[in-house]
Amino acid sequence: MIIDHICIAVKDLYQGVKYWEEVFGYTQMTDFVENSRQKVKVTFLNKNNSLKVKLIEPMDSNKSLFDFVKKGGGFHHICFKCDDINDKLAELKGNGLLTLVPPQPGEAFDGHNIAFLLARYGLIIELIDTDRIAGLK
Amino acid sequence: MIIDHICIAVKDLYQGVKYWEEVFGYTQMTDFVENSRQKVKVTFLNKNNSLKVKLIEPMDSNKSLFDFVKKGGGFHHICFKCDDINDKLAELKGNGLLTLVPPQPGEAFDGHNIAFLLARYGLIIELIDTDRIAGLK
Repeated sequence: MIIDHICIAVKDLYQGVKYWEEVFGYTQMTDFVENSRQKVKVTFLNKNNSLKVKLIEPMDSNKSLFDFVKKGGGFHHICFKCDDINDKLAELKGNGLLTLVPPQPGEAFDGHNIAFLLARYGLIIELIDTDRIAGLK
Repeated sequence: MIIDHICIAVKDLYQGVKYWEEVFGYTQMTDFVENSRQKVKVTFLNKNNSLKVKLIEPMDSNKSLFDFVKKGGGFHHICFKCDDINDKLAELKGNGLLTLVPPQPGEAFDGHNIAFLLARYGLIIELIDTDRIAGLK
């Protein structure tokens, strides 16, 4: 598995995109989408097909992330892409990573399966599979 | 400018490399090198020519980084590559980023020029130029 994107938590998604566009010259690639399972609003930015940057803003019910962005926000997680998310989850759990809530893989807004784990060095790791859920384009 | 690598601070570089190799399947690409200007020991890892991951371990005199890794370490900064580091520094300072000590660009261990700034969302930004310092290969 290799790194698919990094994620930064911001208090206001619109302002976050504006900052990355104006300061770093990145371009918003996806609409603002709400992910009610992860309780975040999400968008992706990119530049010259390099590493994708995901910005997230907490939805109202996401207290822990709200507390984080209230203090300024910042780097949130690294996402790795993998072939089979259940195999990779089992392997990483065997290597001592802890699953984060919800522990089972779930559907991301674009039809991929995702899951979250906690690795050493306080790193939150997202897994995203390269297959889309059947029935979604 | 696009993202060149991300950096994670660890207490012990050898253990950090071992973890990234065993858990994430990455490969160490460079020897352990001391950068006395930044007061860190450094190495880079990669996998399938994807985003580079830099691990740093504080040298003895680097108290702030030592305090960070003592608490577990973790994500440290994002590095962008740019053509002219002085131009990019001036531009980013004009956009409100603060230069970090030392404020002037300096030489990285591999002959590139680097500089550090603080951006919104608490993000430490490293700049690295794509040219090498004259006289170095």
